[in-house]
Amino acid sequence: MFSENQISLFKEIFTKDNIRIIAHRSPDGDTLGSCFALCEVLKNMGKTAEVVCSDRVADKLTVLTDCETELFPTFTPDCIVTVDVATADLLGKAYCDIAAEVDYAIDHHYTNTNFAKNLILDGDCSSAGEVLFYLFKQAGIPLTEKAAFLLYAAIASDTGCFKFANTMPETHEAAANLLRYGIEIEKINKILFDEATVDYIRFECEVINNMKIYDEKIVFLPVTKEMMERYNIQDGEANGLSYLLRRVKGSLIGATLRESDEKIRISLRSFGEENVAEIAAKFGGGGHVKAAGCGIAGTLEEVEEKLLSAIRESIK
Amino acid sequence: MFSENQISLFKEIFTKDNIRIIAHRSPDGDTLGSCFALCEVLKNMGKTAEVVCSDRVADKLTVLTDCETELFPTFTPDCIVTVDVATADLLGKAYCDIAAEVDYAIDHHYTNTNFAKNLILDGDCSSAGEVLFYLFKQAGIPLTEKAAFLLYAAIASDTGCFKFANTMPETHEAAANLLRYGIEIEKINKILFDEATVDYIRFECEVINNMKIYDEKIVFLPVTKEMMERYNIQDGEANGLSYLLRRVKGSLIGATLRESDEKIRISLRSFGEENVAEIAAKFGGGGHVKAAGCGIAGTLEEVEEKLLSAIRESIK
Repeated sequence: MFSENQISLFKEIFTKDNIRIIAHRSPDGDTLGSCFALCEVLKNMGKTAEVVCSDRVADKLTVLTDCETELFPTFTPDCIVTVDVATADLLGKAYCDIAAEVDYAIDHHYTNTNFAKNLILDGDCSSAGEVLFYLFKQAGIPLTEKAAFLLYAAIASDTGCFKFANTMPETHEAAANLLRYGIEIEKINKILFDEATVDYIRFECEVINNMKIYDEKIVFLPVTKEMMERYNIQDGEANGLSYLLRRVKGSLIGATLRESDEKIRISLRSFGEENVAEIAAKFGGGGHVKAAGCGIAGTLEEVEEKLLSAIRESIK
Repeated sequence: MFSENQISLFKEIFTKDNIRIIAHRSPDGDTLGSCFALCEVLKNMGKTAEVVCSDRVADKLTVLTDCETELFPTFTPDCIVTVDVATADLLGKAYCDIAAEVDYAIDHHYTNTNFAKNLILDGDCSSAGEVLFYLFKQAGIPLTEKAAFLLYAAIASDTGCFKFANTMPETHEAAANLLRYGIEIEKINKILFDEATVDYIRFECEVINNMKIYDEKIVFLPVTKEMMERYNIQDGEANGLSYLLRRVKGSLIGATLRESDEKIRISLRSFGEENVAEIAAKFGGGGHVKAAGCGIAGTLEEVEEKLLSAIRESIK
């Protein structure tokens, strides 16, 4: 439940006429679905509203953005809102300098740095989509079917389709409400969670063929630039490889190691009690207990060795 | 909502003392989770109750069966209940002959043949787990945390973790209620939907390497006996391959073709408007519009050709 003060802040947005909504950089389904849902409700009220983003939208997420891959500004706003943006940095290159100009930040990250003039936050929510659903509900602002679809997609994105531990009773109740708008869920879930190009599926197989397992509990997936190029894999797409780490039965810690122009980019996952944020911090990176990242200089082989030593040290 | 008559029938089960509950053959998460949830509630009331099944439980589903893989009868019952069993045939070899002795069949399949003395059915429910949840709720019978966990697992199993079109607002509401018992969902969802042995993951890769795509919309996954043996894949495990068909972007119809001792076993999936039950029927098989199966005699190559012709004919 939001306080009356938070609901009043939220309602202020709907008194404005020209609203710019900013999604976070490297936009995911939660930020895009949430931003476009808010935009849809505002437009449905006759407002001028747009969603902008510093980075390109991944092809499969254009189902949430009216098919647009580039979200550029088109007018001068009288109100700026961010959704799902926890820090000024996450506004991306195009917008990080205007963080202080943001009027309302709507978020579900406890770690939000309060960069905006006003913060509307519920850190207990699974997703920005869930935050917006309950804001709309408490404020008595009706959704359209399209907005319901976008909020559903946002919530599903951040919970792995209600699979992860951040899924709460309230998350399922929000989904139940959104389904009552008559939205179809099977197709969007197929796009968000299952569907991949034949090239990507074959790329994944090659990544698996190169999988390395140490001590029966540490899984490494090294990915060369050559592999990415051969299968025509975009940088954003390769983020999905972390899912493969989750699949390996018995794995406690997993890492994808990707060659990039400078360092080897490491994405770490913990499936037990280990804190991978601490491991990432040893190499100047950071993140959450169960998901973290860092960059390490060297060849793939050198970096594998360094990372393995650090992980073994931390498991001890 | 169940009628008062249906709820009265359900309550009768709780007046008995020695209850046998039969799961369907080739048991899945829905039948096992549901049967064991009912068993748990009965035992918690001081009754003698057991779950039996004609077939072996897949290793990963033993998380629902108190680690048992073989579910044999241990006493003489005064009441026999089936859960998620639509036809006498689905009771399996060990129990199909006693179909007429079943006192109560609890089910969610409209196609239930009414083989038992009493049928308690809601064909609008996603799963037997959802049926049982609402039966317990309407009958005012409290669940234990363990029963809530088992019903959650049953519902998640049959909906692909709330991903498929059979997920209704009521399905999410049931999940919200079950989560309030304090159950942990991430681990069970990892087991049900993600986790696989390294052997199985490598087997999947080889299956993908042999994938054939026709007309940019028909996907075949041929699987030889030799491949199954080399990776030590159980027959039940290979059922999971149908998921791969769903992954291929642009596929309208997919089929796994598995060598077995007699015929080639075909599992068909439709991802568009095509009715694969009709295609399966051409070869003496059957099933649903979007998921069907059949057996075709011949070598893998011969059967691929026959099936492809039939699919092309039906798409025309």
